[in-house]
Amino acid sequence: MSDYDTVSADVEHEEEIPADHPRYQDLLTRHRIETGIEKGITHLQGMHAEGRGSAFDYLLGEETIPSADTAERAAAAHLLLADQPVLSINGNVAALVPGEMVDLASAVGADLEVNLFNRTPERVEAIAEHLREHGADEVKGLTADARIPKLDHQRAKVDADGIYAADVVLVPLEDGDRAEALQEMDKTEIVIDLNPLSRSPQVAAVPIVDNIIRAVPNMTEHARDLADADEAELRSIVDEFDREQVLEDAEARIRNGL
Amino acid sequence: MSDYDTVSADVEHEEEIPADHPRYQDLLTRHRIETGIEKGITHLQGMHAEGRGSAFDYLLGEETIPSADTAERAAAAHLLLADQPVLSINGNVAALVPGEMVDLASAVGADLEVNLFNRTPERVEAIAEHLREHGADEVKGLTADARIPKLDHQRAKVDADGIYAADVVLVPLEDGDRAEALQEMDKTEIVIDLNPLSRSPQVAAVPIVDNIIRAVPNMTEHARDLADADEAELRSIVDEFDREQVLEDAEARIRNGL
Repeated sequence: MSDYDTVSADVEHEEEIPADHPRYQDLLTRHRIETGIEKGITHLQGMHAEGRGSAFDYLLGEETIPSADTAERAAAAHLLLADQPVLSINGNVAALVPGEMVDLASAVGADLEVNLFNRTPERVEAIAEHLREHGADEVKGLTADARIPKLDHQRAKVDADGIYAADVVLVPLEDGDRAEALQEMDKTEIVIDLNPLSRSPQVAAVPIVDNIIRAVPNMTEHARDLADADEAELRSIVDEFDREQVLEDAEARIRNGL
Repeated sequence: MSDYDTVSADVEHEEEIPADHPRYQDLLTRHRIETGIEKGITHLQGMHAEGRGSAFDYLLGEETIPSADTAERAAAAHLLLADQPVLSINGNVAALVPGEMVDLASAVGADLEVNLFNRTPERVEAIAEHLREHGADEVKGLTADARIPKLDHQRAKVDADGIYAADVVLVPLEDGDRAEALQEMDKTEIVIDLNPLSRSPQVAAVPIVDNIIRAVPNMTEHARDLADADEAELRSIVDEFDREQVLEDAEARIRNGL
């Protein structure tokens, strides 16, 4: 362990983490994942993934860099333009930003679909229930009556009227294989990932290199700001977006600091 | 999750992880921590710490860089010169390198002492037993009859004839508060940590920025190589070691690549 580990492991509620602690966001996300594991909504490996992300966030400066904000605005425009947008939810997403994903779905008129790397019926149901507790009306992913081509059985499962049919999908914290497979289905894919070099952001139409706890509320804010925009304005935001620039900016920030 | 997560979570034994997998070391360490949690020797937060470390290791190139090798040789020389060297073992260390720590203790004539951030009697005993299963004769840390000054009760506990009395201590994966407190006791402190900017390596006499699964066997190899060296030779290795250079090299590698 290291110096980020100096708040006791015995925090029962996230309100006990001092908001002015220099590692507040890191401690908060770790606590939420830990709670997710205890509730059965997050896989143990989600704790490893979160730890990995936290190192990249540390190097990014633990803030939404300008190019990430641009990507979040472009993502909001894509979701608003979509015919059938779907927000994919895995165990870490459910643990970290359940209410925030419900808010975003509402702001852009998208469906929420549970989609897990380590899929079990119990965990799918626990996550759906967790989202309902945070205000979701309908949660997809329980039917799982369609398959993403080129993936093995469990990981290919999606809803026929959900991710399978979607034109724009937000897949935060997605694994590379599935991100590639969705890309090959010609969907517009929005990925949130703190490592700009990993495969998921590399294949995404809109790679967002930011912490999900900052990214999702900011996308919702952009969506609300763009609620009255006409299609031409949304289209121009989407057309002007430069995914290569966003990936390069994030890597430069991680490698070289400010 | 991200692209490192494409080996199934269902691996039961580490032999199932293909040794030629590009992420072999990362998958192996994750699997060992997961097994450690299942066995009750590793705290859940150890999975987060390991994930965080894995991101820094990824940026380092997942290899022992030359300056880390130099630090590992200096650490071996310090341990061989010591009157009372002690190797500190926490839940992640026990899960990742139990036999390797026993080998190092034997090569340099050091004691092993269990020392936990989240201390419970059950976990101390489980780790001591785990070390005995890996060949340890005697394991300290169960008496806990002395206290490190300036730390709160649970985290201050050490053995009076172990870490408390030691002149040279290896504290791999140590938290910053305890690393500082040990430093203030005027011990020669050797730290293994993949983040060169975290407090523990910053305060250590010998900061080793390397993955513990590579660092510990390499320290043992250096110790065996130096077994017949006289005190003057060991002293000159120690005197020539430049901790600032090691920290700068590691940061430059992480920030800028090769």
